[in-house]
Amino acid sequence: MHFMNHALDPTIVIAPDSFKGSLDAAQVAAAISAGLIRALPRAKIRQLPMADGGEGTLDALLSRGGQRIELQARDATGQYRPVPAARLHDSGAALETAHVVSITDPIGMAVAARHRTTLGMGDAITALLDDGARRILVALGGSSTNDGGAGLLVALGVRLFDAAGETIPATPDGLGRLARIDLSGLDPRLSEVEIIAMSDVDNPLIGERGAIAVFGPQKGVMPGEIEELDRNLDHFAQLLSIEMQRDLRHAPGAGAAGGLGYALQMLGARFKAGAEIVAEEIELDLALGGADWLITGEGRSDRQTLSGKAPFIACQHATRLGVPTSLLSGAIDRHALPELGRYFAGCFSPAPGPITLETAIADAASLLSDAAEQLARARYARGA
Amino acid sequence: MHFMNHALDPTIVIAPDSFKGSLDAAQVAAAISAGLIRALPRAKIRQLPMADGGEGTLDALLSRGGQRIELQARDATGQYRPVPAARLHDSGAALETAHVVSITDPIGMAVAARHRTTLGMGDAITALLDDGARRILVALGGSSTNDGGAGLLVALGVRLFDAAGETIPATPDGLGRLARIDLSGLDPRLSEVEIIAMSDVDNPLIGERGAIAVFGPQKGVMPGEIEELDRNLDHFAQLLSIEMQRDLRHAPGAGAAGGLGYALQMLGARFKAGAEIVAEEIELDLALGGADWLITGEGRSDRQTLSGKAPFIACQHATRLGVPTSLLSGAIDRHALPELGRYFAGCFSPAPGPITLETAIADAASLLSDAAEQLARARYARGA
Repeated sequence: MHFMNHALDPTIVIAPDSFKGSLDAAQVAAAISAGLIRALPRAKIRQLPMADGGEGTLDALLSRGGQRIELQARDATGQYRPVPAARLHDSGAALETAHVVSITDPIGMAVAARHRTTLGMGDAITALLDDGARRILVALGGSSTNDGGAGLLVALGVRLFDAAGETIPATPDGLGRLARIDLSGLDPRLSEVEIIAMSDVDNPLIGERGAIAVFGPQKGVMPGEIEELDRNLDHFAQLLSIEMQRDLRHAPGAGAAGGLGYALQMLGARFKAGAEIVAEEIELDLALGGADWLITGEGRSDRQTLSGKAPFIACQHATRLGVPTSLLSGAIDRHALPELGRYFAGCFSPAPGPITLETAIADAASLLSDAAEQLARARYARGA
Repeated sequence: MHFMNHALDPTIVIAPDSFKGSLDAAQVAAAISAGLIRALPRAKIRQLPMADGGEGTLDALLSRGGQRIELQARDATGQYRPVPAARLHDSGAALETAHVVSITDPIGMAVAARHRTTLGMGDAITALLDDGARRILVALGGSSTNDGGAGLLVALGVRLFDAAGETIPATPDGLGRLARIDLSGLDPRLSEVEIIAMSDVDNPLIGERGAIAVFGPQKGVMPGEIEELDRNLDHFAQLLSIEMQRDLRHAPGAGAAGGLGYALQMLGARFKAGAEIVAEEIELDLALGGADWLITGEGRSDRQTLSGKAPFIACQHATRLGVPTSLLSGAIDRHALPELGRYFAGCFSPAPGPITLETAIADAASLLSDAAEQLARARYARGA
């Protein structure tokens, strides 16, 4: 290109989230990379697909090594089936709630919300402990459940009884009849494992900002059930507080994943933004070392992006290391540009003009390649 | 901005065409400038609105000096009315065909195409000669006429007679009865004036690629009239060739503006791409001296952009002076990116995601400002 008169071999890191509904994070990174290479054939490109603890988190964690494994775990209706997990370096392991009790699973969603359970999450953690994991990352996004993590605890050895001494189901419905909790069977290995919950939800377990009131309706909790199920979770947690001698009903994040966040915190889990964990695990800082530019993005960027979403976490890492970050997202909320502009060195959409959402989704990969190529040209073109 | 660690005071030239249907060229330049200043408060910005010989050409020429004047000239129906023109430096003057016999003038367009005339163009040139012009730029875009420039010549003193010696109308219809041309009254000052026709049309006067066949239909020439009116122009031009002892019926550009290009060439006019003339007159090269970046654009960019449109001409000037050029147009035809990419250091649309054409037009100025700001951030952000 005659307008580029200098030898240009910048190091560019590409660390996007997925474009939900069109491309996964690895596809986004590949599309951006393809465009950059057209503009800068000698650039060193480092692709690090990101995730924020929701769908795609396992893929992102595995993109830098580790091994995909398969476990047997119950779905939200209590039926066993295979679910994927990741074996990571240093005896680490990872699990996606969305692969066990998923809000997009038609079988689980066919059952009323009050009867769904997180037993499968306990199954999966047990299996990872059996596999030798000493550090377990649990991505909390995308659950269909609202049981306060009661299922998880039961699958790990806790027993729940009604007043007659009968075992009750570990469901929002069952918890209404809870009279006694027996912790004696809790898996003793839990005291030696580090559990890290990946979530950017900071809601408490119960109340107006709690799991049932805020997230229940989108999972099929009926308006008439909210008060009852919230009361059931509160009842469960009060009894558990007495047994475990601590009360985390109002802890930030307790309301994540229908209260799975609560149960994990009761087990000693650390809470951290999913994207932050992913950034650490994929060693984003190492990739950013000596880099000239970071490109990140997501399906749509707005003010929420700055609340711990993957592009923002990536940007913060880059900023600490002195690497400017440009945002290339499917769409940019223009009204958020003043805020986004405080962090990002340019916010762009691949739309080449007025186009429909359908076209943007159908052509997402080639539009992204084009946009990345054009951006690189504008950024690196220098005068004679 | 923490990501900009160096003092940045680049010199940036903004030389866009208009965004037809939404912003004129000066508004486009102002919007881009406003965005750049937000990202680069210390940048030196030089705004040079461009044009390509169509609508907006007078405005572009006058943006760097000169004086707007008003002339009396006939419209396409033969009625006198005031039309604008420009008095430029060095005894120059400029005239827009679109201001005299415009395809958007409802009065002219209400008359059948075969009865429209360019008499007004001759009126205007006469008035400019009276005003002392020694160099007349005629922008040929946007005409409603198809008279081979017969009207222009008549208004400048040529006389057209039928076989009975009666004067005929200088219209496509009238030329069918033409029997004799008398050049004796032609304004003698024409031999001392430099006429420059601004057009990027290279069609001949007559035939399949001629003015009537190619441009007639969009001006209201009926399918059944094409052969007749083309023959009338040929007849007129053959007689004129004999009188003037040269035949320019097939000269490139003779078919511009319904044959106005032919008549001007018969008078000795030079033909040049409109945008090239504008670039010279506004001294684009002077503005580009020492600049770091040129931003240009138009309503929509595609392969046609490379056929002498204003953004391409501006880019060529910048390239010769070693200044990289980015294209910021309302829409970019993605399929033209490989060709556009041979010249432009990045081609961008201000669309922040999937949006409608209506939104793009309604919000054009603020979208442009946003896009220019983001582009500047991406281009000038440097690492620690």
